Amino acid sequence: MRIESRIEELGLVLPEPIQLPEGMRLPFHWVRVRGNRAYISGHGPLLPDGTPSGPYGKVGGEVTVEEAYQSARLTALSILASLKRELGDLDRVVAWLRVFGMVNTVPGFSSQPAVINGFSDLIITLYGPEAGQHARSAVGMADLPMGLPVEIEAEVEISL
Amino acid sequence: MRIESRIEELGLVLPEPIQLPEGMRLPFHWVRVRGNRAYISGHGPLLPDGTPSGPYGKVGGEVTVEEAYQSARLTALSILASLKRELGDLDRVVAWLRVFGMVNTVPGFSSQPAVINGFSDLIITLYGPEAGQHARSAVGMADLPMGLPVEIEAEVEISL
Amino acid sequence: MRIESRIEELGLVLPEPIQLPEGMRLPFHWVRVRGNRAYISGHGPLLPDGTPSGPYGKVGGEVTVEEAYQSARLTALSILASLKRELGDLDRVVAWLRVFGMVNTVPGFSSQPAVINGFSDLIITLYGPEAGQHARSAVGMADLPMGLPVEIEAEVEISL
Repeated sequence: MRIESRIEELGLVLPEPIQLPEGMRLPFHWVRVRGNRAYISGHGPLLPDGTPSGPYGKVGGEVTVEEAYQSARLTALSILASLKRELGDLDRVVAWLRVFGMVNTVPGFSSQPAVINGFSDLIITLYGPEAGQHARSAVGMADLPMGLPVEIEAEVEISL
Repeated sequence: MRIESRIEELGLVLPEPIQLPEGMRLPFHWVRVRGNRAYISGHGPLLPDGTPSGPYGKVGGEVTVEEAYQSARLTALSILASLKRELGDLDRVVAWLRVFGMVNTVPGFSSQPAVINGFSDLIITLYGPEAGQHARSAVGMADLPMGLPVEIEAEVEISL
Repeated sequence: MRIESRIEELGLVLPEPIQLPEGMRLPFHWVRVRGNRAYISGHGPLLPDGTPSGPYGKVGGEVTVEEAYQSARLTALSILASLKRELGDLDRVVAWLRVFGMVNTVPGFSSQPAVINGFSDLIITLYGPEAGQHARSAVGMADLPMGLPVEIEAEVEISL
């Protein structure tokens, strides 16, 4: 449980399972495991109790880059919480592979990488430069579910 | 041919190959098979004869969520038709893995999941909760080819 | 080194490593190799010296489809340069699998496929219709890093 120890050492908390807003139905799974691959659904930032975390809205508009960096960091914790529930132990993630970082963007805003660094920085801190390394895109979306500022999906390799 | 039987039982039809609008050139394949993986290009809704199906435009604007749900359901049939042509038998899909649902979105519209449920609901109905399960994102695009309301790409595991 | 010979025969040049604008920090890798897969981060067009290449802005607005086709072609060269640095020999790419083409789009612009053809045409010219074939989406983003008109990510199979 090396990764979870590091999360604790940093004073961070894995959130509870997401509490969906009234009337929202998501018929898919947060993590789809098959062989040595885990495909991770698009996640957003959560508070420790599993409720979605603001601020909401468009980055470059009502949400600043600094706030959205924190949202991306919280999104990393949401994903780690889902992986923990699916895999039992976060150390089973042996290699981060692909990260797709989506930023709710005002047209004309083009600093998506500075936002998604909130995700990449934490993953590389926790997993180190080998296992934590990943390919990444960070791009601007017209809007995101619930008006979230950030949504991230990913693919990782796991030990069997 | 279990899956095809279910499609028939539901009174659904797999569309003919897409008939591209005059002057549109797509140099790639609709399905790329390699080993036990099939990578599925971005598909949109088709009529049974293979012509693109309206309504066109932005969800949250001229297209309603209910209409777009139907577009996502038709997109599932487009993808199944492409898989059938490539694989011969839809039963060869042993696990849906990753679904990326793109919704042509008016800024301020944030119910992308309710739209892409039209895809997920049909796939899970046809393949069941094990093989049909998948990781998913459902997000808002600034625009899509031909002004389609929905485009979906995916990755599946196939039997050899 | 068959692929590199073809690049030379076409009079094309693989650009130097990207020279990031002042203050931009990208903590991830351009190519993530694991087993027989290489995951390719979102790339944009570069000049031969590695500086980002204009024109900048939205396709359908200040950037024409023809200009953006050239940007997508330059993006193919950026990706090939990254693969060359990571793999040593571009012939190690035995199959292109998935291409995700993102076009910085004015709402109402829906010819994303004609733009991303600049990428697909060059890859298929260089690798041939077997290895060069790929699944693809070409879709409209609200904005892209640095205001680039095109960004492309991909996944390929490599020989070990």
